[in-house]
Amino acid sequence: MSKALKEYQSYCQQRVEQALEIRLPSEKILPQKLHEAMRYCVLGGGKRMRPMLTYCAAKTLGISPDAVDGIACAVEFIHVYSLIHDDLPAMDDDGLRRGKPTCHVAYDEATAILAGDALQALAFETLAHDASILATAENRLQMITILAKASGSQGMVGGQAIDLESVGRQLNLPELEIMHIHKTGALIRASVTMATLAKADIDPVMAIKLDNYAKCIGLSFQVKDDILDEESDTATLGKTQGKDKENDKPTYPALLGMAGAKQKAQELHEKAIDSLSVFGAEADLLRDLSLYIIQRDH
Amino acid sequence: MSKALKEYQSYCQQRVEQALEIRLPSEKILPQKLHEAMRYCVLGGGKRMRPMLTYCAAKTLGISPDAVDGIACAVEFIHVYSLIHDDLPAMDDDGLRRGKPTCHVAYDEATAILAGDALQALAFETLAHDASILATAENRLQMITILAKASGSQGMVGGQAIDLESVGRQLNLPELEIMHIHKTGALIRASVTMATLAKADIDPVMAIKLDNYAKCIGLSFQVKDDILDEESDTATLGKTQGKDKENDKPTYPALLGMAGAKQKAQELHEKAIDSLSVFGAEADLLRDLSLYIIQRDH
Repeated sequence: MSKALKEYQSYCQQRVEQALEIRLPSEKILPQKLHEAMRYCVLGGGKRMRPMLTYCAAKTLGISPDAVDGIACAVEFIHVYSLIHDDLPAMDDDGLRRGKPTCHVAYDEATAILAGDALQALAFETLAHDASILATAENRLQMITILAKASGSQGMVGGQAIDLESVGRQLNLPELEIMHIHKTGALIRASVTMATLAKADIDPVMAIKLDNYAKCIGLSFQVKDDILDEESDTATLGKTQGKDKENDKPTYPALLGMAGAKQKAQELHEKAIDSLSVFGAEADLLRDLSLYIIQRDH
Repeated sequence: MSKALKEYQSYCQQRVEQALEIRLPSEKILPQKLHEAMRYCVLGGGKRMRPMLTYCAAKTLGISPDAVDGIACAVEFIHVYSLIHDDLPAMDDDGLRRGKPTCHVAYDEATAILAGDALQALAFETLAHDASILATAENRLQMITILAKASGSQGMVGGQAIDLESVGRQLNLPELEIMHIHKTGALIRASVTMATLAKADIDPVMAIKLDNYAKCIGLSFQVKDDILDEESDTATLGKTQGKDKENDKPTYPALLGMAGAKQKAQELHEKAIDSLSVFGAEADLLRDLSLYIIQRDH
Protein backbone atom coordinates (compact mmCIF):
# COMPACT_ATOMS: atom_id res chain seq x y z
CA MET A 1 0.00 0.00 0.00
CA SER A 2 1.33 3.48 -0.89
CA LYS A 3 2.38 5.67 2.03
CA ALA A 4 -0.24 8.27 1.09
CA LEU A 5 -3.00 5.66 1.02
CA LYS A 6 -1.82 4.11 4.27
CA GLU A 7 -2.05 7.50 5.98
CA TYR A 8 -5.39 8.20 4.38
CA GLN A 9 -6.78 4.79 5.35
CA SER A 10 -5.70 5.34 8.92
CA TYR A 11 -7.33 8.79 8.84
CA CYS A 12 -10.58 7.30 7.42
CA GLN A 13 -10.60 4.46 9.92
CA GLN A 14 -10.26 6.83 12.85
CA ARG A 15 -12.74 9.26 11.37
CA VAL A 16 -15.44 6.67 10.67
CA GLU A 17 -14.85 4.90 13.99
CA GLN A 18 -15.71 8.11 15.80
CA ALA A 19 -18.60 8.86 13.46
CA LEU A 20 -20.04 5.36 13.97
CA GLU A 21 -19.55 5.54 17.71
CA ILE A 22 -21.63 8.68 18.16
CA ARG A 23 -24.37 7.40 15.84
CA LEU A 24 -24.81 4.02 17.54
CA PRO A 25 -27.23 3.91 20.46
CA SER A 26 -25.51 3.69 23.86
CA GLU A 27 -25.38 0.31 25.58
CA LYS A 28 -26.86 2.08 28.59
CA ILE A 29 -30.14 2.53 26.71
CA LEU A 30 -32.80 -0.20 26.68
CA PRO A 31 -32.52 -2.83 25.23
CA GLN A 32 -28.94 -2.92 26.51
CA LYS A 33 -27.93 -6.33 25.22
CA LEU A 34 -29.08 -5.52 21.70
CA HIS A 35 -27.23 -2.20 21.70
CA GLU A 36 -24.15 -3.88 23.11
CA ALA A 37 -24.25 -6.44 20.31
CA MET A 38 -24.67 -3.73 17.66
CA ARG A 39 -21.67 -1.85 19.04
CA TYR A 40 -19.62 -5.05 19.39
CA CYS A 41 -20.10 -5.81 15.70
CA VAL A 42 -19.73 -2.31 14.28
CA LEU A 43 -16.92 -0.83 16.35
CA GLY A 44 -13.22 -1.57 16.64
CA GLY A 45 -12.40 -3.42 13.49
CA GLY A 46 -12.73 -3.91 9.79
CA LYS A 47 -10.92 -2.50 6.81
CA ARG A 48 -13.65 0.17 6.45
CA MET A 49 -13.23 -0.14 2.72
CA ARG A 50 -16.68 1.25 1.93
CA PRO A 51 -16.43 4.33 4.18
CA MET A 52 -12.94 4.96 2.80
CA LEU A 53 -14.37 4.85 -0.72
CA THR A 54 -17.02 7.38 0.28
CA TYR A 55 -14.43 9.73 1.77
CA CYS A 56 -12.09 9.17 -1.17
CA ALA A 57 -14.78 9.93 -3.77
CA ALA A 58 -15.75 13.04 -1.82
CA LYS A 59 -12.12 14.18 -1.67
CA THR A 60 -11.74 13.66 -5.42
CA LEU A 61 -14.73 15.94 -6.00
CA GLY A 62 -13.60 18.57 -3.50
CA ILE A 63 -16.35 17.71 -0.98
CA SER A 64 -15.49 18.10 2.71
CA PRO A 65 -15.37 14.83 4.68
CA ASP A 66 -17.72 16.44 7.23
CA ALA A 67 -20.43 16.40 4.59
CA VAL A 68 -20.23 12.64 4.03
CA ASP A 69 -19.73 11.25 7.56
CA GLY A 70 -23.38 10.19 7.67
CA ILE A 71 -23.12 8.50 4.28
CA ALA A 72 -19.97 6.61 5.31
CA CYS A 73 -21.75 5.41 8.45
CA ALA A 74 -24.90 4.37 6.61
CA VAL A 75 -22.90 2.24 4.20
CA GLU A 76 -20.92 0.64 7.01
CA PHE A 77 -24.11 -0.10 9.02
CA ILE A 78 -25.49 -1.96 6.00
CA HIS A 79 -22.21 -3.78 5.45
CA VAL A 80 -21.93 -4.89 9.08
CA TYR A 81 -25.57 -5.99 9.24
CA SER A 82 -24.96 -8.15 6.15
CA LEU A 83 -21.88 -9.72 7.76
CA ILE A 84 -23.85 -10.53 10.93
CA HIS A 85 -26.63 -12.23 8.97
CA ASP A 86 -24.27 -13.97 6.52
CA ASP A 87 -22.35 -15.50 9.44
CA LEU A 88 -25.49 -17.08 10.96
CA PRO A 89 -25.64 -20.88 11.21
CA ALA A 90 -28.47 -20.99 8.64
CA MET A 91 -26.26 -19.07 6.20
CA ASP A 92 -22.45 -19.35 6.01
CA ASP A 93 -22.18 -20.58 9.62
CA ASP A 94 -18.97 -18.77 10.45
CA GLY A 95 -17.59 -18.34 13.94
CA LEU A 96 -14.86 -15.78 13.32
CA ARG A 97 -15.05 -12.33 11.77
CA ARG A 98 -12.57 -9.46 11.90
CA GLY A 99 -10.55 -11.63 14.28
CA LYS A 100 -13.37 -11.83 16.84
CA PRO A 101 -16.15 -14.34 17.52
CA THR A 102 -19.12 -13.57 15.26
CA CYS A 103 -22.24 -11.99 16.74
CA HIS A 104 -24.28 -15.17 17.21
CA VAL A 105 -21.28 -16.79 18.92
CA ALA A 106 -20.52 -13.82 21.21
CA TYR A 107 -24.25 -13.33 21.92
CA ASP A 108 -26.89 -15.66 20.49
CA GLU A 109 -28.67 -16.22 17.21
CA ALA A 110 -31.76 -14.21 18.06
CA THR A 111 -29.66 -11.23 19.12
CA ALA A 112 -27.61 -11.52 15.94
CA ILE A 113 -30.71 -11.49 13.75
CA LEU A 114 -32.11 -8.48 15.61
CA ALA A 115 -28.81 -6.57 15.71
CA GLY A 116 -28.59 -6.91 11.93
CA ASP A 117 -32.19 -5.80 11.49
CA ALA A 118 -31.67 -2.77 13.73
CA LEU A 119 -28.47 -1.76 11.92
CA GLN A 120 -30.31 -1.78 8.62
CA ALA A 121 -32.97 0.56 10.02
CA LEU A 122 -30.23 2.77 11.50
CA ALA A 123 -28.59 3.10 8.09
CA PHE A 124 -31.73 4.56 6.55
CA GLU A 125 -32.45 6.71 9.59
CA THR A 126 -28.94 8.15 9.26
CA LEU A 127 -29.35 9.01 5.60
CA ALA A 128 -32.75 10.58 6.19
CA HIS A 129 -31.91 12.51 9.29
CA ASP A 130 -28.19 12.94 9.92
CA ALA A 131 -27.14 16.57 10.32
CA SER A 132 -23.72 15.97 8.76
CA ILE A 133 -25.27 15.46 5.32
CA LEU A 134 -25.74 18.86 3.73
CA ALA A 135 -27.34 17.62 0.50
CA THR A 136 -30.76 18.82 -0.63
CA ALA A 137 -33.77 16.80 0.49
CA GLU A 138 -34.13 15.51 -3.08
CA ASN A 139 -30.54 14.28 -3.12
CA ARG A 140 -30.96 12.62 0.27
CA LEU A 141 -33.99 10.77 -1.08
CA GLN A 142 -31.90 9.68 -4.06
CA MET A 143 -29.21 8.39 -1.67
CA ILE A 144 -31.84 6.40 0.22
CA THR A 145 -33.17 4.94 -3.02
CA ILE A 146 -29.64 4.02 -4.11
CA LEU A 147 -28.77 2.41 -0.78
CA ALA A 148 -32.07 0.53 -0.58
CA LYS A 149 -31.71 -0.85 -4.11
CA ALA A 150 -28.05 -1.71 -3.53
CA SER A 151 -28.85 -3.61 -0.37
CA GLY A 152 -32.19 -5.19 -1.31
CA SER A 153 -33.33 -8.25 -3.24
CA GLN A 154 -31.82 -6.99 -6.48
CA GLY A 155 -28.61 -5.93 -4.75
CA MET A 156 -26.64 -7.31 -1.83
CA VAL A 157 -29.35 -9.54 -0.32
CA GLY A 158 -30.14 -10.90 -3.77
CA GLY A 159 -26.45 -11.71 -4.26
CA GLN A 160 -26.36 -13.64 -1.02
CA ALA A 161 -29.47 -15.57 -2.13
CA ILE A 162 -27.82 -16.44 -5.44
CA ASP A 163 -24.66 -17.41 -3.57
CA LEU A 164 -26.51 -19.78 -1.24
CA GLU A 165 -28.35 -21.42 -4.11
CA SER A 166 -25.08 -21.96 -5.93
CA VAL A 167 -23.42 -24.05 -3.22
CA GLY A 168 -22.48 -27.43 -4.61
CA ARG A 169 -23.59 -26.39 -8.10
CA GLN A 170 -21.29 -25.56 -11.00
CA LEU A 171 -21.63 -21.86 -11.88
CA ASN A 172 -20.19 -20.51 -15.09
CA LEU A 173 -18.30 -17.22 -15.23
CA PRO A 174 -21.26 -14.96 -16.16
CA GLU A 175 -23.30 -16.48 -13.33
CA LEU A 176 -20.48 -15.99 -10.84
CA GLU A 177 -20.10 -12.40 -12.03
CA ILE A 178 -23.82 -11.69 -11.60
CA MET A 179 -23.64 -13.09 -8.08
CA HIS A 180 -20.74 -10.84 -7.08
CA ILE A 181 -22.12 -7.75 -8.81
CA HIS A 182 -25.15 -8.19 -6.58
CA LYS A 183 -23.51 -9.44 -3.41
CA THR A 184 -20.65 -6.99 -2.93
CA GLY A 185 -20.48 -4.83 -6.06
CA ALA A 186 -23.76 -3.01 -5.52
CA LEU A 187 -22.88 -1.68 -2.07
CA ILE A 188 -19.36 -0.67 -3.12
CA ARG A 189 -20.85 1.29 -6.03
CA ALA A 190 -23.37 2.89 -3.68
CA SER A 191 -20.52 4.02 -1.38
CA VAL A 192 -19.18 6.09 -4.26
CA THR A 193 -22.43 7.15 -5.94
CA MET A 194 -23.90 8.48 -2.72
CA ALA A 195 -20.82 10.63 -2.18
CA THR A 196 -21.32 12.25 -5.58
CA LEU A 197 -24.84 13.24 -4.48
CA ALA A 198 -23.42 15.19 -1.55
CA LYS A 199 -22.37 17.83 -4.06
CA ALA A 200 -25.20 19.86 -5.55
CA ASP A 201 -23.66 20.69 -8.91
CA ILE A 202 -21.61 17.66 -9.82
CA ASP A 203 -20.60 17.24 -13.48
CA PRO A 204 -22.56 14.15 -14.63
CA VAL A 205 -19.56 12.86 -16.59
CA MET A 206 -17.49 12.82 -13.42
CA ALA A 207 -20.25 10.96 -11.58
CA ILE A 208 -20.41 8.32 -14.32
CA LYS A 209 -16.62 7.91 -14.36
CA LEU A 210 -16.54 7.43 -10.60
CA ASP A 211 -19.39 4.93 -10.84
CA ASN A 212 -17.43 2.98 -13.48
CA TYR A 213 -14.40 3.01 -11.25
CA ALA A 214 -16.48 1.65 -8.38
CA LYS A 215 -17.94 -1.09 -10.58
CA CYS A 216 -14.43 -2.28 -11.51
CA ILE A 217 -12.95 -2.26 -8.03
CA GLY A 218 -16.10 -3.88 -6.62
CA LEU A 219 -15.42 -6.88 -8.79
CA SER A 220 -11.63 -6.87 -8.43
CA PHE A 221 -12.14 -6.82 -4.66
CA GLN A 222 -14.17 -10.00 -4.90
CA VAL A 223 -11.77 -11.75 -7.25
CA LYS A 224 -8.97 -10.93 -4.81
CA ASP A 225 -11.09 -12.15 -1.89
CA ASP A 226 -11.50 -15.51 -3.61
CA ILE A 227 -7.74 -15.66 -4.22
CA LEU A 228 -7.03 -14.82 -0.58
CA ASP A 229 -9.53 -17.37 0.67
CA GLU A 230 -7.49 -20.02 -1.11
CA GLU A 231 -3.95 -18.73 -0.53
CA SER A 232 -3.92 -16.99 2.84
CA ASP A 233 -4.14 -18.42 6.34
CA THR A 234 -6.82 -17.89 8.99
CA ALA A 235 -4.67 -15.68 11.24
CA THR A 236 -3.90 -13.21 8.44
CA LEU A 237 -7.48 -13.18 7.13
CA GLY A 238 -9.15 -12.69 10.51
CA LYS A 239 -11.81 -15.12 9.32
CA THR A 240 -11.86 -18.83 8.62
CA GLN A 241 -9.59 -19.64 5.67
CA GLY A 242 -10.56 -22.05 2.88
CA LYS A 243 -14.21 -21.70 3.90
CA ASP A 244 -15.48 -21.17 0.36
CA LYS A 245 -13.64 -24.16 -1.03
CA GLU A 246 -14.74 -26.30 1.89
CA ASN A 247 -18.36 -25.28 1.26
CA ASP A 248 -17.90 -26.14 -2.41
CA LYS A 249 -18.69 -22.54 -3.33
CA PRO A 250 -17.85 -21.32 -6.81
CA THR A 251 -14.80 -19.02 -6.87
CA TYR A 252 -12.74 -17.25 -9.51
CA PRO A 253 -9.68 -19.48 -8.95
CA ALA A 254 -11.92 -22.54 -9.29
CA LEU A 255 -13.29 -21.31 -12.62
CA LEU A 256 -10.26 -19.55 -14.11
CA GLY A 257 -7.37 -21.22 -12.33
CA MET A 258 -5.20 -19.22 -9.96
CA ALA A 259 -3.23 -17.52 -12.77
CA GLY A 260 -6.44 -16.67 -14.63
CA ALA A 261 -8.00 -15.19 -11.50
CA LYS A 262 -4.94 -13.01 -10.91
CA GLN A 263 -5.02 -11.80 -14.48
CA LYS A 264 -8.72 -10.99 -14.15
CA ALA A 265 -7.99 -8.88 -11.07
CA GLN A 266 -5.22 -7.07 -12.95
CA GLU A 267 -7.50 -6.29 -15.91
CA LEU A 268 -10.20 -4.90 -13.64
CA HIS A 269 -7.61 -2.73 -11.94
CA GLU A 270 -6.52 -1.33 -15.32
CA LYS A 271 -10.12 -0.57 -16.26
CA ALA A 272 -10.58 1.21 -12.93
CA ILE A 273 -7.52 3.37 -13.60
CA ASP A 274 -8.81 4.20 -17.10
CA SER A 275 -12.09 5.40 -15.61
CA LEU A 276 -10.17 7.99 -13.62
CA SER A 277 -8.51 9.59 -16.65
CA VAL A 278 -10.76 12.67 -16.46
CA PHE A 279 -9.31 13.41 -13.03
CA GLY A 280 -5.90 14.77 -12.12
CA ALA A 281 -3.83 14.20 -9.01
CA GLU A 282 -6.95 14.62 -6.85
CA ALA A 283 -7.86 11.01 -7.77
CA ASP A 284 -4.47 9.55 -6.86
CA LEU A 285 -5.78 7.97 -3.69
CA LEU A 286 -8.49 6.20 -5.67
CA ARG A 287 -5.77 4.95 -8.02
CA ASP A 288 -3.67 3.72 -5.10
CA LEU A 289 -6.74 2.07 -3.61
CA SER A 290 -7.47 0.10 -6.74
CA LEU A 291 -3.89 -1.17 -6.76
CA TYR A 292 -4.05 -2.01 -3.07
CA ILE A 293 -7.25 -4.02 -3.54
CA ILE A 294 -5.56 -6.46 -5.89
CA GLN A 295 -2.28 -6.56 -3.94
CA ARG A 296 -3.50 -6.86 -0.32
CA ASP A 297 -2.84 -9.96 1.74
CA HIS A 298 -6.03 -9.86 3.85
CA MET B 1 -67.39 -5.15 13.48
CA SER B 2 -69.66 -2.36 12.18
CA LYS B 3 -70.98 -2.77 8.64
CA ALA B 4 -69.20 0.42 7.55
CA LEU B 5 -65.87 -0.79 8.95
CA LYS B 6 -66.32 -4.22 7.43
CA GLU B 7 -66.82 -2.69 4.00
CA TYR B 8 -63.92 -0.34 4.55
CA GLN B 9 -61.64 -3.12 5.71
CA SER B 10 -62.50 -5.17 2.67
CA TYR B 11 -61.81 -2.11 0.50
CA CYS B 12 -58.44 -1.53 2.21
CA GLN B 13 -57.46 -5.18 1.97
CA GLN B 14 -58.15 -5.28 -1.75
CA ARG B 15 -56.50 -1.92 -2.28
CA VAL B 16 -53.31 -2.74 -0.40
CA GLU B 17 -53.12 -6.25 -1.88
CA GLN B 18 -52.99 -4.71 -5.34
CA ALA B 19 -50.59 -1.97 -4.20
CA LEU B 20 -48.26 -4.54 -2.62
CA GLU B 21 -48.44 -6.84 -5.62
CA ILE B 22 -47.20 -4.21 -8.07
CA ARG B 23 -44.44 -3.06 -5.72
CA LEU B 24 -43.00 -6.51 -5.03
CA PRO B 25 -40.38 -7.74 -7.49
CA SER B 26 -41.67 -10.42 -9.87
CA GLU B 27 -40.78 -14.03 -9.15
CA LYS B 28 -39.54 -14.17 -12.74
CA ILE B 29 -36.67 -11.83 -11.82
CA LEU B 30 -33.41 -13.19 -10.37
CA PRO B 31 -33.12 -14.35 -7.59
CA GLN B 32 -36.42 -16.11 -8.25
CA LYS B 33 -36.65 -18.15 -5.06
CA LEU B 34 -36.08 -15.08 -2.88
CA HIS B 35 -38.70 -13.07 -4.74
CA GLU B 36 -41.10 -16.00 -4.56
CA ALA B 37 -40.59 -16.17 -0.78
CA MET B 38 -41.13 -12.43 -0.39
CA ARG B 39 -44.38 -12.63 -2.36
CA TYR B 40 -45.49 -15.77 -0.52
CA CYS B 41 -45.18 -13.96 2.82
CA VAL B 42 -46.56 -10.56 1.85
CA LEU B 43 -49.45 -11.44 -0.45
CA GLY B 44 -52.78 -13.11 0.12
CA GLY B 45 -53.38 -12.81 3.81
CA GLY B 46 -53.28 -10.83 6.98
CA LYS B 47 -55.65 -8.43 8.64
CA ARG B 48 -53.73 -5.52 7.06
CA MET B 49 -54.39 -3.57 10.22
CA ARG B 50 -51.50 -1.15 9.68
CA PRO B 51 -52.33 -0.28 6.06
CA MET B 52 -55.98 0.13 7.08
CA LEU B 53 -54.87 2.57 9.78
CA THR B 54 -52.89 4.54 7.23
CA TYR B 55 -55.87 4.72 4.85
CA CYS B 56 -58.22 5.49 7.72
CA ALA B 57 -56.07 8.34 9.06
CA ALA B 58 -55.75 9.74 5.54
CA LYS B 59 -59.53 9.57 5.04
CA THR B 60 -60.10 11.35 8.36
CA LEU B 61 -57.85 14.18 7.14
CA GLY B 62 -59.39 14.35 3.68
CA ILE B 63 -56.32 12.87 1.98
CA SER B 64 -56.92 10.71 -1.09
CA PRO B 65 -56.01 7.02 -0.64
CA ASP B 66 -53.94 7.26 -3.84
CA ALA B 67 -51.55 9.55 -1.99
CA VAL B 68 -50.82 7.01 0.75
CA ASP B 69 -50.64 3.69 -1.12
CA GLY B 70 -46.85 3.78 -0.90
CA ILE B 71 -46.97 4.50 2.84
CA ALA B 72 -49.41 1.65 3.46
CA CYS B 73 -47.11 -0.72 1.56
CA ALA B 74 -43.97 0.44 3.36
CA VAL B 75 -45.57 -0.21 6.73
CA GLU B 76 -46.82 -3.63 5.67
CA PHE B 77 -43.40 -4.59 4.25
CA ILE B 78 -41.84 -3.79 7.63
CA HIS B 79 -44.59 -5.66 9.48
CA VAL B 80 -44.24 -8.78 7.33
CA TYR B 81 -40.44 -8.76 7.54
CA SER B 82 -40.74 -8.66 11.33
CA LEU B 83 -43.16 -11.61 11.31
CA ILE B 84 -40.78 -13.65 9.13
CA HIS B 85 -37.84 -13.01 11.45
CA ASP B 86 -39.88 -13.43 14.65
CA ASP B 87 -41.07 -16.84 13.46
CA LEU B 88 -37.52 -18.15 12.93
CA PRO B 89 -36.37 -21.12 15.06
CA ALA B 90 -33.86 -18.89 16.90
CA MET B 91 -36.70 -16.53 17.86
CA ASP B 92 -40.31 -17.62 18.48
CA ASP B 93 -39.91 -20.80 16.42
CA ASP B 94 -43.39 -20.77 14.96
CA GLY B 95 -44.54 -22.95 12.07
CA LEU B 96 -47.87 -21.33 11.27
CA ARG B 97 -48.71 -17.75 10.35
CA ARG B 98 -51.82 -16.31 8.70
CA GLY B 99 -53.00 -19.90 8.37
CA LYS B 100 -50.02 -20.90 6.19
CA PRO B 101 -46.62 -22.49 6.92
CA THR B 102 -44.16 -19.77 7.98
CA CYS B 103 -41.43 -18.66 5.57
CA HIS B 104 -38.63 -20.82 6.96
CA VAL B 105 -40.93 -23.86 6.86
CA ALA B 106 -42.22 -23.23 3.33
CA TYR B 107 -38.70 -22.34 2.12
CA ASP B 108 -35.69 -22.54 4.44
CA GLU B 109 -34.10 -20.49 7.22
CA ALA B 110 -31.58 -18.71 5.04
CA THR B 111 -34.26 -17.66 2.58
CA ALA B 112 -36.46 -16.46 5.44
CA ILE B 113 -33.68 -14.30 6.87
CA LEU B 114 -32.93 -12.83 3.45
CA ALA B 115 -36.59 -12.31 2.51
CA GLY B 116 -37.05 -10.31 5.72
CA ASP B 117 -33.91 -8.28 5.06
CA ALA B 118 -34.99 -7.51 1.51
CA LEU B 119 -38.49 -6.47 2.60
CA GLN B 120 -37.01 -3.99 5.04
CA ALA B 121 -34.93 -2.42 2.27
CA LEU B 122 -37.99 -2.37 0.00
CA ALA B 123 -39.97 -0.48 2.64
CA PHE B 124 -37.46 2.38 2.67
CA GLU B 125 -37.06 2.33 -1.09
CA THR B 126 -40.82 2.68 -1.39
CA LEU B 127 -40.98 5.68 0.94
CA ALA B 128 -38.05 7.38 -0.80
CA HIS B 129 -39.08 6.71 -4.34
CA ASP B 130 -42.71 5.71 -4.76
CA ALA B 131 -44.61 7.91 -7.20
CA SER B 132 -47.90 7.53 -5.30
CA ILE B 133 -46.60 9.63 -2.42
CA LEU B 134 -47.16 13.27 -3.27
CA ALA B 135 -45.58 14.72 -0.12
CA THR B 136 -42.70 17.20 -0.26
CA ALA B 137 -39.18 15.77 -0.20
CA GLU B 138 -38.82 17.07 3.37
CA ASN B 139 -41.98 15.25 4.47
CA ARG B 140 -40.84 12.05 2.77
CA LEU B 141 -37.57 12.26 4.70
CA GLN B 142 -39.56 12.72 7.89
CA MET B 143 -41.61 9.61 7.05
CA ILE B 144 -38.39 7.64 6.53
CA THR B 145 -37.03 8.86 9.85
CA ILE B 146 -40.28 7.92 11.59
CA LEU B 147 -40.42 4.46 10.03
CA ALA B 148 -36.73 3.79 10.72
CA LYS B 149 -37.05 4.81 14.37
CA ALA B 150 -40.29 2.87 14.77
CA SER B 151 -38.75 -0.29 13.37
CA GLY B 152 -35.22 -0.02 14.79
CA SER B 153 -33.51 -0.86 18.07
CA GLN B 154 -35.57 1.67 19.97
CA GLY B 155 -38.77 0.58 18.25
CA MET B 156 -40.07 -2.74 16.97
CA VAL B 157 -36.75 -4.63 16.90
CA GLY B 158 -35.94 -3.35 20.37
CA GLY B 159 -39.32 -4.61 21.58
CA GLN B 160 -38.63 -8.06 20.21
CA ALA B 161 -35.24 -8.04 21.98
CA ILE B 162 -36.91 -7.08 25.28
CA ASP B 163 -39.54 -9.77 24.67
CA LEU B 164 -36.94 -12.50 24.11
CA GLU B 165 -35.01 -11.49 27.20
CA SER B 166 -38.17 -11.60 29.28
CA VAL B 167 -39.01 -15.27 28.55
CA GLY B 168 -39.16 -17.18 31.81
CA ARG B 169 -38.68 -13.99 33.80
CA GLN B 170 -41.34 -12.18 35.80
CA LEU B 171 -42.06 -8.79 34.22
CA ASN B 172 -44.07 -6.20 36.05
CA LEU B 173 -46.74 -4.12 34.33
CA PRO B 174 -44.56 -1.11 33.41
CA GLU B 175 -41.94 -3.45 31.92
CA LEU B 176 -44.57 -5.33 29.94
CA GLU B 177 -45.97 -2.02 28.69
CA ILE B 178 -42.52 -0.79 27.58
CA MET B 179 -42.02 -4.02 25.69
CA HIS B 180 -45.31 -3.70 23.80
CA ILE B 181 -44.92 0.03 23.13
CA HIS B 182 -41.69 -0.88 21.37
CA LYS B 183 -42.67 -4.18 19.81
CA THR B 184 -46.01 -3.37 18.20
CA GLY B 185 -47.00 0.12 19.34
CA ALA B 186 -44.25 2.00 17.51
CA LEU B 187 -45.14 0.66 14.08
CA ILE B 188 -48.87 1.16 14.60
CA ARG B 189 -48.20 4.79 15.55
CA ALA B 190 -45.98 5.20 12.51
CA SER B 191 -48.82 3.92 10.28
CA VAL B 192 -50.89 6.88 11.39
CA THR B 193 -48.19 9.55 11.77
CA MET B 194 -46.81 8.96 8.31
CA ALA B 195 -50.29 9.43 6.83
CA THR B 196 -50.55 12.86 8.49
CA LEU B 197 -47.30 13.83 6.69
CA ALA B 198 -48.91 13.13 3.33
CA LYS B 199 -50.86 16.38 3.79
CA ALA B 200 -48.78 19.52 3.45
CA ASP B 201 -50.76 21.82 5.73
CA ILE B 202 -52.04 19.55 8.49
CA ASP B 203 -53.22 21.23 11.71
CA PRO B 204 -50.62 20.13 14.32
CA VAL B 205 -53.36 19.58 16.93
CA MET B 206 -55.06 17.09 14.66
CA ALA B 207 -51.76 15.30 14.08
CA ILE B 208 -51.17 15.02 17.84
CA LYS B 209 -54.71 13.75 18.45
CA LEU B 210 -54.34 11.08 15.80
CA ASP B 211 -50.98 10.09 17.25
CA ASN B 212 -52.59 9.74 20.69
CA TYR B 213 -55.33 7.63 19.19
CA ALA B 214 -52.71 5.38 17.56
CA LYS B 215 -50.81 5.03 20.84
CA CYS B 216 -53.96 3.82 22.62
CA ILE B 217 -55.09 1.33 20.00
CA GLY B 218 -51.52 0.07 19.59
CA LEU B 219 -51.60 -1.03 23.19
CA SER B 220 -55.21 -2.22 23.26
CA PHE B 221 -54.40 -4.34 20.22
CA GLN B 222 -51.65 -6.05 22.17
CA VAL B 223 -53.73 -6.53 25.31
CA LYS B 224 -56.41 -8.13 23.14
CA ASP B 225 -53.79 -10.30 21.39
CA ASP B 226 -52.71 -11.66 24.77
CA ILE B 227 -56.34 -12.34 25.68
CA LEU B 228 -56.92 -14.13 22.38
CA ASP B 229 -53.75 -16.16 22.72
CA GLU B 230 -55.19 -17.57 25.92
CA GLU B 231 -58.87 -17.86 24.98
CA SER B 232 -59.04 -18.64 21.28
CA ASP B 233 -58.14 -21.78 19.36
CA THR B 234 -55.45 -22.30 16.73
CA ALA B 235 -57.87 -22.60 13.80
CA THR B 236 -59.51 -19.24 14.57
CA LEU B 237 -56.20 -17.50 15.23
CA GLY B 238 -54.40 -18.76 12.12
CA LYS B 239 -51.33 -19.15 14.32
CA THR B 240 -50.41 -21.51 17.11
CA GLN B 241 -52.67 -20.91 20.14
CA GLY B 242 -51.34 -20.73 23.70
CA LYS B 243 -47.81 -20.16 22.34
CA ASP B 244 -47.05 -17.29 24.70
CA LYS B 245 -48.18 -19.15 27.79
CA GLU B 246 -46.32 -22.26 26.68
CA ASN B 247 -43.13 -20.19 26.25
CA ASP B 248 -43.71 -18.70 29.68
CA LYS B 249 -43.96 -15.24 28.14
CA PRO B 250 -45.40 -12.42 30.21
CA THR B 251 -48.93 -11.47 29.16
CA TYR B 252 -51.60 -9.03 30.35
CA PRO B 253 -53.93 -11.81 31.55
CA ALA B 254 -51.02 -13.33 33.49
CA LEU B 255 -50.30 -10.01 35.22
CA LEU B 256 -53.79 -8.56 35.60
CA GLY B 257 -55.97 -11.64 35.47
CA MET B 258 -58.39 -12.15 32.59
CA ALA B 259 -60.96 -9.66 33.94
CA GLY B 260 -58.25 -7.07 34.60
CA ALA B 261 -56.85 -7.47 31.09
CA LYS B 262 -60.30 -7.00 29.58
CA GLN B 263 -60.85 -3.87 31.64
CA LYS B 264 -57.48 -2.53 30.54
CA ALA B 265 -58.45 -3.03 26.88
CA GLN B 266 -61.75 -1.24 27.52
CA GLU B 267 -60.00 1.74 29.16
CA LEU B 268 -57.57 2.08 26.28
CA HIS B 269 -60.48 2.01 23.85
CA GLU B 270 -62.17 4.84 25.75
CA LYS B 271 -58.98 6.90 25.70
CA ALA B 272 -58.69 6.31 21.96
CA ILE B 273 -62.24 7.57 21.45
CA ASP B 274 -61.52 10.66 23.58
CA SER B 275 -58.53 11.49 21.37
CA LEU B 276 -60.87 11.72 18.41
CA SER B 277 -63.16 14.34 19.97
CA VAL B 278 -61.77 17.11 17.73
CA PHE B 279 -63.05 15.20 14.71
CA GLY B 280 -66.60 14.79 13.48
CA ALA B 281 -68.17 11.95 11.54
CA GLU B 282 -65.07 11.73 9.31
CA ALA B 283 -63.36 9.84 12.16
CA ASP B 284 -66.19 7.32 12.63
CA LEU B 285 -64.22 4.51 10.99
CA LEU B 286 -61.33 5.10 13.40
CA ARG B 287 -63.85 4.91 16.26
CA ASP B 288 -65.28 1.67 14.89
CA LEU B 289 -61.78 0.30 14.44
CA SER B 290 -60.86 0.93 18.05
CA LEU B 291 -63.96 -0.94 19.16
CA TYR B 292 -63.28 -3.76 16.76
CA ILE B 293 -59.74 -4.17 18.05
CA ILE B 294 -60.95 -5.01 21.55
CA GLN B 295 -63.90 -7.10 20.36
CA ARG B 296 -62.31 -9.22 17.58
CA ASP B 297 -61.99 -12.97 17.92
CA HIS B 298 -58.73 -13.33 15.92
